[in-house]
Amino acid sequence: MAEGRPLGVAVVGSAFMGKAHSNAWRNVRAFYPDVPDVRQQVLVARDAEATRDLAARYGWAEAATDWRTVIDRDDVDVVDICLPGHLHAEVAIAALEAGKHVLVEKPLANSVDEAEKMLVVAQAARERGVLSMVGFNYRRVPALVLARDLVASGRLGDVRQVKVAYLQDWLADADAPMTWRMRKETAGSGALGDLASHAVDQVRFLLGQDVVSVSGSTETFVRRRTGADGLEDVTVDDAAWATLRTSGGAVASLEVTRMATGRKNSLSIEVYGSEGALAFDLEALNELSVCTDPAAGFTRRLVTEADQPYVGAWWPPGHILGWDHTFTSQAADFLTAIGSGDEPSPSFADGLAVQRVLAAVEESGARSGELVDVEVS
Amino acid sequence: MAEGRPLGVAVVGSAFMGKAHSNAWRNVRAFYPDVPDVRQQVLVARDAEATRDLAARYGWAEAATDWRTVIDRDDVDVVDICLPGHLHAEVAIAALEAGKHVLVEKPLANSVDEAEKMLVVAQAARERGVLSMVGFNYRRVPALVLARDLVASGRLGDVRQVKVAYLQDWLADADAPMTWRMRKETAGSGALGDLASHAVDQVRFLLGQDVVSVSGSTETFVRRRTGADGLEDVTVDDAAWATLRTSGGAVASLEVTRMATGRKNSLSIEVYGSEGALAFDLEALNELSVCTDPAAGFTRRLVTEADQPYVGAWWPPGHILGWDHTFTSQAADFLTAIGSGDEPSPSFADGLAVQRVLAAVEESGARSGELVDVEVS
Amino acid sequence: MAEGRPLGVAVVGSAFMGKAHSNAWRNVRAFYPDVPDVRQQVLVARDAEATRDLAARYGWAEAATDWRTVIDRDDVDVVDICLPGHLHAEVAIAALEAGKHVLVEKPLANSVDEAEKMLVVAQAARERGVLSMVGFNYRRVPALVLARDLVASGRLGDVRQVKVAYLQDWLADADAPMTWRMRKETAGSGALGDLASHAVDQVRFLLGQDVVSVSGSTETFVRRRTGADGLEDVTVDDAAWATLRTSGGAVASLEVTRMATGRKNSLSIEVYGSEGALAFDLEALNELSVCTDPAAGFTRRLVTEADQPYVGAWWPPGHILGWDHTFTSQAADFLTAIGSGDEPSPSFADGLAVQRVLAAVEESGARSGELVDVEVS
Amino acid sequence: MAEGRPLGVAVVGSAFMGKAHSNAWRNVRAFYPDVPDVRQQVLVARDAEATRDLAARYGWAEAATDWRTVIDRDDVDVVDICLPGHLHAEVAIAALEAGKHVLVEKPLANSVDEAEKMLVVAQAARERGVLSMVGFNYRRVPALVLARDLVASGRLGDVRQVKVAYLQDWLADADAPMTWRMRKETAGSGALGDLASHAVDQVRFLLGQDVVSVSGSTETFVRRRTGADGLEDVTVDDAAWATLRTSGGAVASLEVTRMATGRKNSLSIEVYGSEGALAFDLEALNELSVCTDPAAGFTRRLVTEADQPYVGAWWPPGHILGWDHTFTSQAADFLTAIGSGDEPSPSFADGLAVQRVLAAVEESGARSGELVDVEVS
Repeated sequence: MAEGRPLGVAVVGSAFMGKAHSNAWRNVRAFYPDVPDVRQQVLVARDAEATRDLAARYGWAEAATDWRTVIDRDDVDVVDICLPGHLHAEVAIAALEAGKHVLVEKPLANSVDEAEKMLVVAQAARERGVLSMVGFNYRRVPALVLARDLVASGRLGDVRQVKVAYLQDWLADADAPMTWRMRKETAGSGALGDLASHAVDQVRFLLGQDVVSVSGSTETFVRRRTGADGLEDVTVDDAAWATLRTSGGAVASLEVTRMATGRKNSLSIEVYGSEGALAFDLEALNELSVCTDPAAGFTRRLVTEADQPYVGAWWPPGHILGWDHTFTSQAADFLTAIGSGDEPSPSFADGLAVQRVLAAVEESGARSGELVDVEVS
Repeated sequence: MAEGRPLGVAVVGSAFMGKAHSNAWRNVRAFYPDVPDVRQQVLVARDAEATRDLAARYGWAEAATDWRTVIDRDDVDVVDICLPGHLHAEVAIAALEAGKHVLVEKPLANSVDEAEKMLVVAQAARERGVLSMVGFNYRRVPALVLARDLVASGRLGDVRQVKVAYLQDWLADADAPMTWRMRKETAGSGALGDLASHAVDQVRFLLGQDVVSVSGSTETFVRRRTGADGLEDVTVDDAAWATLRTSGGAVASLEVTRMATGRKNSLSIEVYGSEGALAFDLEALNELSVCTDPAAGFTRRLVTEADQPYVGAWWPPGHILGWDHTFTSQAADFLTAIGSGDEPSPSFADGLAVQRVLAAVEESGARSGELVDVEVS
Repeated sequence: MAEGRPLGVAVVGSAFMGKAHSNAWRNVRAFYPDVPDVRQQVLVARDAEATRDLAARYGWAEAATDWRTVIDRDDVDVVDICLPGHLHAEVAIAALEAGKHVLVEKPLANSVDEAEKMLVVAQAARERGVLSMVGFNYRRVPALVLARDLVASGRLGDVRQVKVAYLQDWLADADAPMTWRMRKETAGSGALGDLASHAVDQVRFLLGQDVVSVSGSTETFVRRRTGADGLEDVTVDDAAWATLRTSGGAVASLEVTRMATGRKNSLSIEVYGSEGALAFDLEALNELSVCTDPAAGFTRRLVTEADQPYVGAWWPPGHILGWDHTFTSQAADFLTAIGSGDEPSPSFADGLAVQRVLAAVEESGARSGELVDVEVS
Repeated sequence: MAEGRPLGVAVVGSAFMGKAHSNAWRNVRAFYPDVPDVRQQVLVARDAEATRDLAARYGWAEAATDWRTVIDRDDVDVVDICLPGHLHAEVAIAALEAGKHVLVEKPLANSVDEAEKMLVVAQAARERGVLSMVGFNYRRVPALVLARDLVASGRLGDVRQVKVAYLQDWLADADAPMTWRMRKETAGSGALGDLASHAVDQVRFLLGQDVVSVSGSTETFVRRRTGADGLEDVTVDDAAWATLRTSGGAVASLEVTRMATGRKNSLSIEVYGSEGALAFDLEALNELSVCTDPAAGFTRRLVTEADQPYVGAWWPPGHILGWDHTFTSQAADFLTAIGSGDEPSPSFADGLAVQRVLAAVEESGARSGELVDVEVS
């Protein structure tokens, strides 16, 4: 497919993530001229009229309501899945089997089981030249790529400790209403799946190491909330804590919560090595604090220099990027992989690895915090 | 024109600002669904082949090399001028006289004379329903609009002092090469026109007051630089300082420079009133520090709440915006004005007012810092 | 004793803490005019000549080398113990039994056993009007007292999460030499006793709650170091992590380390309640960040206003205090209690409670992180 | 004098500065063991009973009410003047003529005339081995000494721009009462003498250059205040601004005010050189931000390492100093100079130089901002 014409893309899902991914496909060629040409073919979502309107505004040629018909189209080469987690497996597997390259928004799935099945299909598809990727978009924050490069270069020495927290506050109000996000059957978990998935992926990404064991626990502070049908039990966690041990002997502390009053979207990461250290906060995502001389302290780098990761595609020094630019760079990387046939990253195997860590946190919590080993592929 | 069809836009200029403005037109409808529909008709720049390529990547239907032919086209309703300052007047006047709505990138012009002529033409056009605006895009930074609203609400009491600085460092290196930007005949001035124009506009915007007198001076620290033709005199300023007095009795200190080693794009603004204060820095443009209780100090607000200016169009709390989003919001505001027929803001009169302040700084500098009155329309 | 004359004080120990406590006694009356008058009677340390010199410079009337003779003197009313932890119990018990008021530098002891014995003696002494206190000096940081008051006032609502870390880096260098501080027999533990003792005390202090269960672990990253006698095993922890659950249902995450390259003395504390939040860092100990309006964010308070805790004793607003001022305020509080006969705080019972939490962290670590209940008196 | 016995010190004045200087003399030997031994001989202030009480608490052997009798005493070797500015000249001249070493709190005097007379007497005294110093205590902030050393080392290249502001807010409230500080006859000037004196001294200190010309102005925002005798005109400035040009070709912008709502004691200083830069704020006086690699940005140094200026005298890394520690270090430096016979710094000549700059700001203000040359000795 796609000989001599732009790659046709379909986005499935038009809510928050559908908006963010549409933005990426609309802008990717403006900033990344060297990626394969691309055409925003079709936006898929449930409501026909609303989707037609959104498709027009978001730059899509067409709208559709049934993802099954879309993955059968010859003019669709890439399927980008922006649905709730429990629907990821079905659509991704069908699309891969239909020969479409697949990008799945994080987390890869709601369970280890689903993730394992998806990986099997993805690996089979890979044999036929069909690629897949999971959308941990923070791997495209320039400051975090620079952080990863610094770790990999050895400038920090041996990494011993990582301190990662993802703090939000949108459930701090006990009167916030019950939604599907607080029910286990639809959401799988709470802060754990939503926030810790990013945090765990960053630990793996920054260190280039696997998580091999976990001690952790979770807590639900507000145990009942009022929804459309009255008062109801909250069946997912509000917050989770864990200590992760990595294949390289580092220890990472992890704290995620939706109850951190005053914190909106604070994914903070600190990495301490024998010779240097790093600090980052997503609320100021253009900055990376770097310590390479312990006596001197941390240098606040504004990561907006042309020679820094991704930055050259955008604006001059000091002209900061926003949260959504990470999706555009993610699309660029996926297109580049499709063009070259190289393995895109992070892979479904990475998505599964994260899922196993999250499951281990839950298991450890159920066993009073006892250490749980994590299977590493 | 534009009955029953989207407004046709032409951008003239394809360099840094052409890229930023193209981005705005490509995305404006995705985020601002209520603005008049718009079509990216034509991108105009000198090199035919390069412009064709850019036009394709930036989302334009066509490319052209002669702005004169473009402003005569019936399918072009809006002309957006992204050329160097000394070319603004000619294109803007021609476009307005051709009945096109005109957006001019800041500064409005390189001289008070040119700006005055442009204003006359714009006012005449206004009589015929043709609108004009000058692109001080920082008026669309959510934090700065919130700042303006706080001042206007009286929460800060009487504003007494403003402290504004715009610090960059791209000329700190004495070996940086000579370019047209360091020659008076092409650039008009140095940091003064480039950086102080933004700073002065913000003083006027935030306070809703005019600047009535100025004492100031300029300096060129590196007086000769090497260009393509060898060593050459630098004939514009590297830095400028001024004390501005406003119609409301406030005093604003101003410092702008391209020699502030380590500062990339730091437009910092502090406003001190009798009952409260504000602080802002463009390098962290999603934040506004607000003091409304002197004993308590400054509150760092992450200006990403849905009810804050412009924010609702974008992403959830804590998902920060970048520098380029201001241009998209600027395009939305211009389109809204075109749709309603209301006066867009900032007007050419605002552009002229800024130009007069900059001219007064130069005049004061030539007179050893003596106070110079500024004409207020 | 001490009828009609100043209270006589003896400090036992002349190293780092002896210097800090001497500074406190020398200055306490200058800043706290209402405390009982005090006389710096005698400084006790091992080396006679060095102690004479230090005594003269630190403002002591006399020097001595044997603490036993000192606690028998009639002109000594207060014994302030600044010795290594394993010597605390013996001196404190003897002094209390001799009828002296006793201040013991933290941690109260190296083990739960010792601490329990000290508490028994202290309670008996209390019956005879003899007072005792443990020197958790950070309870006298104005910002932390203000924090405690804010929690107690209910302004933050129900506290759900606390995030506390104490990060230093003086052992990050694997070539740093072996000392008694890295041997279990002399130091008891590593970062746990030294740093976590402060951190746990702050959790109890700020929340006014007990720690009721603990899951945790420790790690020694550099397992052998070279000392005077060659390469030797490090037998204490370099770092520790724990999740603490409190009597009020809050969860506190704890991380302490001497390996956090670039962090010198960073005791950072965040408290998240249902209606507000706090943040503090000892490296900037004059500041407290307070959130009482989640939409507005955190207000950086410079805690230097006259009506804030302890501040009135010192300097005008904005004139910051140093680390050592906390000891002077601690001495003032102890003197005030002696004057009034009221119970000083923190008591030996507080010291014991901290010791039990530290022991529980070690026990949990030995049991793969399993939850350990903590005895609460 | 002072053969074989400690140097006898008298402090004249017991208010804010008398308290701060008493603290310095009381503690200097504890932290600086190598300075000449010193005895707190006598505290001089108007009210006999209050002074007796303060003398006892502040560690003075005696109290007195008449400075004239004190400067005649043989057991007084050092006179430290902590009186309001208009009394400095008389006491300093008398003390120097009586052969006493004299430390004068800043500013040296209220006028250039007085300062010139004091310098003549000081230079004559110097011939007889009698020393004098002016108390610009911020020259003893470790971070600022480190800053001065960095500039002197050439690490920043040629200094081109300095940005200095001293912002307080204690007069922001228009209802704050009239005091002697707002009357020209007693205070000489307002923010100018009080705050700009420190700021100008730092420009001279950090750069090691003279100020050679000044353009500036002042403003009184609240022109009438109510005092004990009813409504009264404020006859000093609330705020002042200036541009200073230095002997080395640098330009320093200066802004000082008592109306900066929310700022308590913010002396902020930025220094921009051709190869590096510095930033400092007195509200966080243990920190210095240093840029020596423009692409990397600013490194926040916690200036608490033992090998940094003054720090070795105090506490381990990360244990921060307060505002008052600067006075103790100042006393140590003066004592060291007395011991060695070397010229102490800053001298009365430095005090006069600052005074001349302040007078030039006033003169320039009176001449509509016109540039005024400053006499350099």
